[in-house]
Formats: sequence, structure tokens, C-alpha cells
Amino acid sequence: MPARPAFVEHVEMTGHIVDSLLLPKVLDAILSRGGQYHIESLDLGQRQDDASRARIEVRADSAAKLDAILAEIHPHGAVSTHPVDCTVAAADVPGAFPDGFYCTTNFRTQVRLKGEWVEVEDQEMDCGILVDPDGAARCVPMTSVAKGDLVVVGRTGLRVFPPEAEMRKRELFEFMASPVSSERPKAVSVREVAHAMKRTRAAGEKILAVLGPAVVHTGGGEFVAHLVRTGYLNVLFAGNALATHDIEQAFYGTSLGVSLDHGLPTDEGHEHHLRTINTIRRLGGIKAAVTAGKLKSGIMYECATRDVPYVLCGSIRDDGPLPEVITDILVAQNEMRRHIPGTGFCLMVATTLHSIAVGNLLPAWVKVACVDISPATVTKLMDRGSTQTVGIVSDAEPFLRSLVAELDKSI
Amino acid sequence: MPARPAFVEHVEMTGHIVDSLLLPKVLDAILSRGGQYHIESLDLGQRQDDASRARIEVRADSAAKLDAILAEIHPHGAVSTHPVDCTVAAADVPGAFPDGFYCTTNFRTQVRLKGEWVEVEDQEMDCGILVDPDGAARCVPMTSVAKGDLVVVGRTGLRVFPPEAEMRKRELFEFMASPVSSERPKAVSVREVAHAMKRTRAAGEKILAVLGPAVVHTGGGEFVAHLVRTGYLNVLFAGNALATHDIEQAFYGTSLGVSLDHGLPTDEGHEHHLRTINTIRRLGGIKAAVTAGKLKSGIMYECATRDVPYVLCGSIRDDGPLPEVITDILVAQNEMRRHIPGTGFCLMVATTLHSIAVGNLLPAWVKVACVDISPATVTKLMDRGSTQTVGIVSDAEPFLRSLVAELDKSI
Amino acid sequence: MPARPAFVEHVEMTGHIVDSLLLPKVLDAILSRGGQYHIESLDLGQRQDDASRARIEVRADSAAKLDAILAEIHPHGAVSTHPVDCTVAAADVPGAFPDGFYCTTNFRTQVRLKGEWVEVEDQEMDCGILVDPDGAARCVPMTSVAKGDLVVVGRTGLRVFPPEAEMRKRELFEFMASPVSSERPKAVSVREVAHAMKRTRAAGEKILAVLGPAVVHTGGGEFVAHLVRTGYLNVLFAGNALATHDIEQAFYGTSLGVSLDHGLPTDEGHEHHLRTINTIRRLGGIKAAVTAGKLKSGIMYECATRDVPYVLCGSIRDDGPLPEVITDILVAQNEMRRHIPGTGFCLMVATTLHSIAVGNLLPAWVKVACVDISPATVTKLMDRGSTQTVGIVSDAEPFLRSLVAELDKSI
Amino acid sequence: MPARPAFVEHVEMTGHIVDSLLLPKVLDAILSRGGQYHIESLDLGQRQDDASRARIEVRADSAAKLDAILAEIHPHGAVSTHPVDCTVAAADVPGAFPDGFYCTTNFRTQVRLKGEWVEVEDQEMDCGILVDPDGAARCVPMTSVAKGDLVVVGRTGLRVFPPEAEMRKRELFEFMASPVSSERPKAVSVREVAHAMKRTRAAGEKILAVLGPAVVHTGGGEFVAHLVRTGYLNVLFAGNALATHDIEQAFYGTSLGVSLDHGLPTDEGHEHHLRTINTIRRLGGIKAAVTAGKLKSGIMYECATRDVPYVLCGSIRDDGPLPEVITDILVAQNEMRRHIPGTGFCLMVATTLHSIAVGNLLPAWVKVACVDISPATVTKLMDRGSTQTVGIVSDAEPFLRSLVAELDKSI
Repeated sequence: MPARPAFVEHVEMTGHIVDSLLLPKVLDAILSRGGQYHIESLDLGQRQDDASRARIEVRADSAAKLDAILAEIHPHGAVSTHPVDCTVAAADVPGAFPDGFYCTTNFRTQVRLKGEWVEVEDQEMDCGILVDPDGAARCVPMTSVAKGDLVVVGRTGLRVFPPEAEMRKRELFEFMASPVSSERPKAVSVREVAHAMKRTRAAGEKILAVLGPAVVHTGGGEFVAHLVRTGYLNVLFAGNALATHDIEQAFYGTSLGVSLDHGLPTDEGHEHHLRTINTIRRLGGIKAAVTAGKLKSGIMYECATRDVPYVLCGSIRDDGPLPEVITDILVAQNEMRRHIPGTGFCLMVATTLHSIAVGNLLPAWVKVACVDISPATVTKLMDRGSTQTVGIVSDAEPFLRSLVAELDKSI
Repeated sequence: MPARPAFVEHVEMTGHIVDSLLLPKVLDAILSRGGQYHIESLDLGQRQDDASRARIEVRADSAAKLDAILAEIHPHGAVSTHPVDCTVAAADVPGAFPDGFYCTTNFRTQVRLKGEWVEVEDQEMDCGILVDPDGAARCVPMTSVAKGDLVVVGRTGLRVFPPEAEMRKRELFEFMASPVSSERPKAVSVREVAHAMKRTRAAGEKILAVLGPAVVHTGGGEFVAHLVRTGYLNVLFAGNALATHDIEQAFYGTSLGVSLDHGLPTDEGHEHHLRTINTIRRLGGIKAAVTAGKLKSGIMYECATRDVPYVLCGSIRDDGPLPEVITDILVAQNEMRRHIPGTGFCLMVATTLHSIAVGNLLPAWVKVACVDISPATVTKLMDRGSTQTVGIVSDAEPFLRSLVAELDKSI
Repeated sequence: MPARPAFVEHVEMTGHIVDSLLLPKVLDAILSRGGQYHIESLDLGQRQDDASRARIEVRADSAAKLDAILAEIHPHGAVSTHPVDCTVAAADVPGAFPDGFYCTTNFRTQVRLKGEWVEVEDQEMDCGILVDPDGAARCVPMTSVAKGDLVVVGRTGLRVFPPEAEMRKRELFEFMASPVSSERPKAVSVREVAHAMKRTRAAGEKILAVLGPAVVHTGGGEFVAHLVRTGYLNVLFAGNALATHDIEQAFYGTSLGVSLDHGLPTDEGHEHHLRTINTIRRLGGIKAAVTAGKLKSGIMYECATRDVPYVLCGSIRDDGPLPEVITDILVAQNEMRRHIPGTGFCLMVATTLHSIAVGNLLPAWVKVACVDISPATVTKLMDRGSTQTVGIVSDAEPFLRSLVAELDKSI
Repeated sequence: MPARPAFVEHVEMTGHIVDSLLLPKVLDAILSRGGQYHIESLDLGQRQDDASRARIEVRADSAAKLDAILAEIHPHGAVSTHPVDCTVAAADVPGAFPDGFYCTTNFRTQVRLKGEWVEVEDQEMDCGILVDPDGAARCVPMTSVAKGDLVVVGRTGLRVFPPEAEMRKRELFEFMASPVSSERPKAVSVREVAHAMKRTRAAGEKILAVLGPAVVHTGGGEFVAHLVRTGYLNVLFAGNALATHDIEQAFYGTSLGVSLDHGLPTDEGHEHHLRTINTIRRLGGIKAAVTAGKLKSGIMYECATRDVPYVLCGSIRDDGPLPEVITDILVAQNEMRRHIPGTGFCLMVATTLHSIAVGNLLPAWVKVACVDISPATVTKLMDRGSTQTVGIVSDAEPFLRSLVAELDKSI
């Protein structure tokens, strides 16, 4: 029998820790990082509604290893049995965190300040936690740090609430627990996304759509416009390409020069997108084009006339871009952050880059449906820690067509 | 200047050889195989309705190289200016062609017999040409060869008619000339396939469907059943999996154990397909199950009750299989061949293996639409010489749903 | 509070049931099927080497629902606390199981006969269990059933041993627990596959390779030949295409007519594969071609000269096929079954159909590495219950090249 | 016979217009746009080295249709038989072209100014042509336009030189004329890319690499570093992710927290990338980190120490970003433009967005090899008009490993 490692910490976990797999994950993490555990007590919920409570002794043969284990199990809800206040350090370099900063998850988090557990606001992964002089705490990206800001360092005085309950729910966000695959019943996916959108709208929360240009190329633009008109799309995040092709369709009936009526490349069609951008620039922007009576249909038209906010983020492949496109990506990220509070559901269609960008910004409790024809895109998003995401491998236009039919049916 | 190569042949080409790209392809092939050409005469159709005629001298520095060039340009319609009868040899080994056998394309072909150009029947690629004693010629696979059969060898006395005119038509089979991509207007693809199916039905030709199991998994089975009922599916080629999952859906409401109603794996669902096969085997087959009143809905039910012939081909991944599945692949190929004459259109959905198999059997003038969610599958089929194929990157269920809606709309 | 359901059964589980996730899975399954559980006792292994033991009361509000739950949790190792002998029924229809037959998993299984737990032989998923008069039990596919054979029905008197320990091992078969992705360190994958192959060879077990034609198309044939020569490939399962393209390369230096030297389509190249098959048919087969001195290199040559058995299975897309190809798929499956005992490792490269076919035949304790450039193929295999499979999204030739380099390095 | 359309123009074409397919394309375009042609003269190069010359009358039944046809055939090299000077208009809105601006291709282009054909500089697709007072002409993006700039409008006085000769060359850029596929001989692709890189270096031209983060994730970073050291990578375009993961590997031995040694996620690994960025921000940038002795290996280290320029472009999914990342995408595009002159070869690996962005900036005569494991990415790039691109469907690390071996072998 191996010697008993000398470095020790006691942690406890509460909740549905067995059937939500949190306890097994913690035990597994301890072992796989070379530590040992001793379950000092386990008060098991015998029936499914009872919460459980476990107290675990964690041992490792070095302080570094013990610390690594604690870091690993912390996001699964394992907290020290002897909570102390969190530690903060003043930022010494603007635009950067102090060394040893606590790196956030997208799970609900609390910090302990003066003996009280305080909720962290603006929860977002891969940020630091800034503590205000008045005792409030919130997530901030590193670029927002000013010299002297107080930033949480280490993991003491922090607790994380992983979304345990989700594992038991028999709704949308479970039926595809198995690997991402195109071989699923599609009508079910559509129906469940429709239900989630209705519930969200009924709850007075916002539905956010993140859309790539293939939405327009495949002919799905009219369905998105319909979602805007019927109040099922309350905020739009997209790029220059989606907006341009949408307006190109309104101006010329084409998307990247391909006719959406007969599918054939049209005369000079490859120039349409550039002429579209140029025209909108000459008119002073999308809203100006609507006001001037030049832009009369499409996704952007509907958003502009119904005051549905949109954030158009720039990318290096952009032609033009359109005047409303935010060309600085940090400004664009902050503009997206501004629209996230109040969001209850997020629908991502046909955009890898933008989906990952928004997935990074959303807290874990905002449900996401990510629709893409490529399984790799869907996997990529789910692989990056957005556990709240349902991946649907399907085609943009037919998916949106069916979604609109499903939403309309039940009104 | 290089010496003038010594080995020479004269060929001629007629038709729309410039704008259908046949002449440029021939010239390019000559050069790229190391030969030289001299265009002895070119009678160019000055207007678009005029046929052209070219006479070309081909030279190479060895007989082997010249022969290789002639082999290469032959399928583009370049024929010797001095036609002679074709050469035949008697098969010396049963189930194999004589050495030097002519290897067929899927283009319309004629052989010269006793000074007459005779049409080759049962045109199919990768076959040999068997000449009957009574002067008929037809394609046969090598396994069908009996000792003593007369088989065409070499290329003399043969001419091939590549489908030149297609290059000018502005219909379904052109709007996706560019690389296979998911970013196309989907409604157009659906509409054009629907048009092709209506034209085929109106012309009294058969519509052949080749379907993979994802058709059922995604929930598309009911739409295929509808196609059978409305006369838009006249022959079905599929495998054990499609038929089993279809019958599983009729028996249990699941496909591979996944409920098509709520998308969740059901109790013991993974066993459903096996129990389905076992039940059908106990009943004596699909038709027996229909007669016994046990099978009451689905694709196979509709085919059985409406006398729509189906060929179920075995594969090594099959469980069971169902009694009607043809487990010997040569027998299965021949059974498929038997149903091809009279086919005007072929719709392939969600099956790589079967699509390639059927693509190999069809003559070039049968139009094919190949629908798959993976661009690689579509590319693979088109890469194998089935130039008559339109690839549509889309999802099985939504495609079929839209196709049925489009077909119904216009009745 | 809901009424206490009336239908009840008691089950127990032993082993590493917490950290191998078996207990949570069982609890989750009970709830998700609408049942209730009461953990009557849980003797938890407090340290990682201790086994645990749980006794659970399962309740449901109908006998059917309770049975469904028991069926669901059975493969996770939950067995009745009151074992009785298994039930058998005589087959009444040849080639089919009796109604209610027990459907096997690929996990190690025992049946209780006359109060003794008897190991089931030839473990294979989706089979039935046949009990011999002398008290032996083995898996059989339904086609092998003769009238009067005694087949296990129901689940009583059966226990299943899911591979719990695997969840804790830090080896090849764990580092890709997360979704299938191409974005993994490739040198690690190669190294771990090499280690597994060395361990297998050192243990005197067989290495089985299942290969698709892209192995040859991409230029990987020489590396496979090297594996055969160095004893790292002991059984080969493939199809007509792989063998034909391999021999085509030996005969013409091309694969499907594409030169493996310069990557260009060669003169008459598209005919090479057909001429290759015809030549081998004329010679009487692959081994005859080797004996005749006509076939002198490549995968099939190495197999033939080193008595490495190969099973070539037919498929409906086959040209020819080669004489050794087994055209009846049931015969082919049985021939593959014959070679599986003694197999310690299985390497699948670039073949969806064949990989799934072989995955269905292998017991759960044979480790599998499945290499394919398409994430969908890898996902498909893992989705079908082959939990012992590691998916590696990579390219055939470079993977094999690196594998050979890694294996050679360490000799 | 239809009436003879009234609107007419005469164009001429010279060069290898038949075997490079330019003439057939022009004839096809005229017909498919509803026009008619009359080939007034065709002086055909009878041997392959002779240039041809055609004079074609184009007719359409409206001025608009005629204009559309002329626009369509213009990029294929069809120019009016009566050249006049080009037309310019002064920009009336800053940051936008005048209405009717000529939209550029990436082909070599000339404008006629005062009777002289003048070469257009900085050739780039989707730009306008700005004419300087001193008679020079160059491509400019719309954002660079100042009020009063003289911009070419219409197509008169312009001629385009499509890359005809390429169609005849038997080199790298032809062997994959057929659809993008993973089933190609990979060693050939590697060898041809290596040849192109050697030729480029020998010619004193620059090799530009555009790399995505999967290069590092798959373990390919060391091979890229080797390319930098051996002078085979002269300019690097990448994003925040590639640079961060490369530096993360130097700091922690991981990429996105996955160890490149053993492939397992490491302790706190998911935080590594964020800590990496924070550290570099604290140090003041990549070069500062190298100078401070903190960054000692990897791609960025090699670039920094060898003065290989790099342009890191921001994207909205960026964490941080690193100080050198250009967060404004218009600034980033201009910085990339600055490095393009003198580039002879461009290698793109594992990045869709960045590849398309750079493909848009390159003139047609810079050869590009685009390597990606997903056929869809490769197709997407080729679909966007970058005809000079060879697509290679392969895996990043193995491709780079083989490329380095091939380059080293031949030194």
C-alpha cells in the first residue's frame, strides 16, 4: 500500500451530486491527478427529490499537486469546509490581471466578502472577478482592467454552482446527450426549439439570434424576417456578410450573385455584393437606406423598422464593410455584452466563428441551439465548454422554414 | 523545334464540339499525354444552332503513346476517319473477358459490324461488349461471360456519343456546375427536382429512388411513403437497414430505438431493430407481414400494397437480415439491372455506398439527383464519372418534406 | 407527493459503481423512465481501491414500465437480488429466435443454469444466447438458429459485466473522452496506437486491420505492407476495392487510375481497376497470381506470402469482383467471426461500412482505434455502441506513415 | 428562325483561346444570357504553340442584355474591337465609389489612358481602379476612397488577361482539377508543395503562410518553427488564437490546455490560454517577452528572433487579445496588403476565415495551396474565385511533418 500523502484538504459538496454525476466526476478528477480521496461522510438522498451531501478528504503528495486537484474539482461545486474570504490584489498593469488571478467559468459563482457570500454579476467565462469598493463583484475581461482595480486571486472564498439539475430534465436539452449526429429525427429538433422560443417569449425574456451568411445563401432570409415580425427574434448578432447578402437580395434578388429564384448565377452577379455595400455606404447606412425608402424588405429591413437591435461585427474577410459594422473587435465584443442581459434563449445558425464568440459571452443558464450542416462546427462549439448547447446537424433554410411553420402552427 | 513525331492517326469530331468543350478537351488531352496535334480542318458552326466538324491529325513518338492518346480522346467523341469493323475475341476463361477487351463508358455507344453502326444495348460503364451471332451488341459484366462468348477488343470500330448538348441546357442539371456546396438556395433545388420528377412521370418513365437509413432516422419515412402513394416513386433500391428501420417505426414508433415523436431513446429501444427483423422472419417476409395484417404503414407497406418493386441488397453490416434481402451481391446487382430499363430519373438520398453502386449501373442519360448532408458523399459520387448527377448538400427529412410539399402544390 | 408506485423489484450492483458512473447511470435511467428509486443500502468504497455495493429498490406504476426499467439498467450491471435460473424456449421457426428472446450486448455476460453462473461464449452484440444440452451457452446470430434450438428468453438468470474499470485508466482509451475532433495532438494518437499494437503483439494476441480503399488511394499501401512484414498486422478484413486498388498499384502504379507517383490521372487509367480484376480472374485468384509470379508487391502480396489470413467481403458497388471476394454477406460475416477469437486490437482505417460491420462483431474488451478523415464516420461508429473505440480524425496515408515510423523507432 | 437581335457589339480574343477553354466559355456565356453570336473570323493556331485569334459579333435584343453579356465575357479576355479610353468619375462621397464603378477581378488588368494601355497596380479583386493625375492606375478598396478621387466607371477602355496558360501546365496546380477529395495520393501533394516552395525561395520571392490554431492543437507548431528557421516561411498571417496557443505551448507544454506530450487535458489546463495572454500583456508584447527571455521557443519566437514579419488579425472570438493583435479589421487588412507584394507562394493551413480573407487580397498569379481536413473549407475557398488555389484535404500536423521531411531531404 502506498504511503499516505501528506498534503490534505477537506471539501464538501451538496445537491444532486450522485445522479447529476458531480460526485463521480470529482472522485475521478482526484484520482486522475494522482491524488487520493477518503469519503468521510456521504448523506445520500435516497429518493430522487432529496439532496445529498458529501464530505471528502483530498490528499496529494505535494502542495502543488493538491492545489491542482482543488482547481480541477472546484468548478464541480466542491468547496472547502472552512470557507474564508476571497483574496484580492490590485491590478498593477492596465489591461491585464494581476498574477494568480481567478479565471472564471460560465457557471453561477459567489465570492465571500467580509463573511458574506456575494453573487458575481455579469457572469462570463474566461474573465477575472473585479470587486468594487462597495462590495459588489462582477466579471470583467482583461482589457477592461484599470490600474488599481481589485481583482480576485486564487480560489479561496469562491464557490461555483454547476448546473446539476439540467442532467435530469427531459426536455430539449437532453435528447441529444449522445454524440452530435445528423441522423436524428429533425421534426423533433424543430419542435423543441420552437417550444423553447415560445417559453422564452412567454417569460418576457429575449431571444437572441446569431446568424451566418449561409442563412441567406440557402434562401432562409425570408423566414428570419418572419421571426423578427412575429416577435421571435429580439436581438440579432451577425456580420457584414449576412447583412450584405440580405440587402443584396432586397436590391437584386441574389445572394453572392446567385439568384434565389432560379439558383443560377446572374449577369454580373458576382459584383452585386460589392455594389450593395457601396450603395449603402453612399446612403449613410442601413437605417438611412430604410428611411430613404431604398431598402424595403429582408432581415435588416425588419430589424430596422421594428427597432430590433442588431450588432454587426467586423471580420478580416469583409468587403466594404457596411457603415454599421463595428470594425474594432473589442468594441464589438462589448456591444454584444451590452445586449446579453435578459436573454433567455439563443439560436445560432450556420456560423462557426460567431457562434463560438457568443458562446464565450453567455452565462451557462442561457440555453443555446446551434444549427449547422457540418457536424464539426457543432462539435467545436460544444467542445469549448458551452454545455448548455444543443447541437442540431441540419440545413439552414429547411430548418428555418420548418421552425417558422411550427411557431405559426401553434399560435 | 522538336522533331515531328512519327506515329500518326487522323480523327474527326462532329457536333457542338466547341461550346460543349469537347474539342478543347481533346486538344488538351493530346498535349497532356505528350502528343502533338494539327487541326487539318475546322468547319465551325458560326451560329449557335450549327454543328461543327473538325478533322485532326494526332502524332506521338511511339505507337504505345499514340494508342494511349486515342484511348483518352475516344470517349470525347473523336473517331477515326477510316472506320473499320470492330474486333472481337472469344472468351477463353468463363467469368472473365479476353485480354485487351474494350472497357465501356456509360455514354451511348455504337459498334461497327459488317460495315453497319449498331447500337450497343444495356449501356453500362465498366463492362465489356458482347456481340451476339445475330449481330446485336450489349454490355455485360465480366461475371456473366461464358466461355466462347464473343467480346469486343480494342477500340477500332467503336464510337461513343458524349452528352454534348447538356452543356447548353439551363435546367436542373446545370445550376450547380460549380463545386458541391451547402450554400445554395435550397428551395430552388427542391423545385427543380420536383420538376424533373413531374416531367419523368408525365413522360411515362420510371422514377427510381435509392435510399439510406438516415431517411427514416431523420423522420423522412412518411414523405417517402407519400411519394409511393402519389406515384412519384416507381422502383425502390435500398438495404436491410432502411427497410428494418421503416418497419421498426411501424411496429414501435422508433428508428434504431429513437422515438420519432419525442426524439428520446425509448425503453429497450436499441433492441427494436433486432426484434423487428426477427418478427418479419417469423412471419415469412415483408409481404407476408402485410398480408397477415401485421405491417400497416410505412415505406415498405406502401411498396408492398401498391406493387412498387423494391430490391433490398445485403451488406456485411446487416443484422438478420429481413427475408427479402438479397444476400449475394452479384445476384443483387443483376436484380437492380433488371429494373433500370425505362428509368427516367433517379433520386438518391442519404446513402453513399448504394448511390455509387447504382451510379455505376445507370447509363449517362438517366438524370440523377444525389442528396446528402455530407459534401464528401456528393463529391465522391460525382468524382466517379456520373456526370449526369446533381449533388445537393442537404438534410434528408427537410429535403423530402419540402419535395412532397412542392409536388403536392402543383397537382 | 405522488402515490408510491405498486410494482417493485430489488436489484444490487457491485464494483466501482460510483466513479465508473454506473450507479448514477442506473439512478438516472430509473427516473427518466418514470420510475422511482430508494437506495436501501450503499456500502461505498471510501478509497479508490475499494469496491462499492448498492442495493436499490425500483418502483414503477405498471408491470410493463417496471420491466422496461429493468431492461434499461440491466446492461449497467444491476442484477436482481434473488437470482433464478435463466429461461429458455425452443426455436419454433428456423432462422429466427423465439418471441421474447434475450438480445445480447457486447459486454461479458453470464447465464444461470441449474444454479450455476455460466460464462457466455462468442460474446457478440445483437445476437441471441443458445444453450447447449451439455450446459454451455454461446451467442448466435438469428440466421444460425435451427428449429428446436434452446434460446434464452427474458432477462432473468442473466448478468452483464459492463467494463467499469476502463473509466479510470489513463491510457489510449481515455484521452479522447471528449467529442470527436480533428483538433487533437496527432503524434500522441499515433504513439498510443503504436503502444497498443506492441502490447498486443507482446501478449501473443492478434492485431486485426479493417481497411478501406482510401488507404491505397492516399498512398498508404506501402505502410500497410510494412505492417504485414513486421508482424503488426495478423488478420485483414477488407473489400474488393482495397484489394483491387492494391493490386492495380502493383500492376500499373496507379490507384483508380491515378498515379501514386505524380498524382495525375494516367492514360486509360480509369480502366486499370477493371483490367486488374479481369487479370486476376483469368489467373484464378490472388494467391494464384502470386504463385504465378505475376503479383509481386503490395498488401495482398504480403498477406499471401506470409499466410496472413484475409477476408474480402463483397458489396453491391463491386466491379468484378476478385475471385477471393465472398459475395454472400452472411458467409462473409461468418468468415469474419471465425477470425475474431484471439484478437487483442483492431485498427480500422478509412472505411465506414466495414468498420461498423466489424464493430458489431467484436466483444467489448477488444480495443479498437478507428481512423478516418471524416468526423462523421468516427462519430457514427462510436454512436453504435462500440464504447471500446477510440476515434481519430486524421488522414489515412499520413497516419499510417507516422504509425510505421513510430513502430520502427522503438524496435 | 428568330428575328435577328438589334443590339450589336464586336469583340476579339487572342491567345490559346480554344484549348484554354476561353472561347467556348465566351460562346456559352453569350447563349446562356440570351444573346446570339456570329464568329466573323477564327484564325486557329493549328499547332499547340500557335496563338489563335477570334472576332465575334455579339447580338442581344436590348441594350441592357447586351451590356450584361459584355460584362460577363469581359473577364474571359473578350475586348471590343474598337478600344477607347476608359471613363473615370470623381468620388462624390468619401469611403465609397461613384455609381457604376468598375469592379475588379484578381486577373492582370490594363486601362486605356490617352490611347495607351496602362498596367493596373496592386491588383486585387472586389476593388475599384483609381487613376492618378500622373496617369498611373491602381486597385483600391472602397474605404480608401477620398472625395474627388478619380475612379474608373464602366468597362470601356479596360482589358483583362485571364490566366490561360495555366490550363496547359502539368504541375502542382493541375493534378487536382477534379473535385476536392481526401482520396488523393498524399505524398504527391506534399512533394509538389515542397517543389513550389523551393522554386519560390530560389526565385527570391516570398512564401506567405496563413495558419489557423489547429496547426498548434494537432502538434504541428514545431514544424512551422522549422520552416521559419530554414527560410521557407517569410511572412506569417494568423490570429490571436494561433499565437496564443503557440506561446501557451512554450510556457506550459499545452494547447488549449491539452498536453502535446500525452494528449490529456492537464491540471487547470483550460486556463492556460488566458494566463498566457495575460502574461504577454503584462510583459508588453511578444517581442518584449522574447527580449525579456521569457519566450524561448515556438512559431512566434522564431518569427520574432529572425525578423520574419507577422500580422496578427483580431476576431470577435478572441480572448485578450495579445498586444500585437490588430483589433481593427480594416487596419489589419491594410497591414496584410502591405506584405503581399513580392509573394510568390502562399500556404494556408487549417483556417477557413483567414484563408478566404487572404484569398481575396491575392492577385491571381500568386499560387496558393490550401490544406484543411474538411473538404467543405477547401471547396469554399475555391468557390470564391481563387482559381489559383490547390485544395488538399489532409490533416495539419501530418501534412506539415511530411512537408518538412520533404524539404529537408532535398537540401
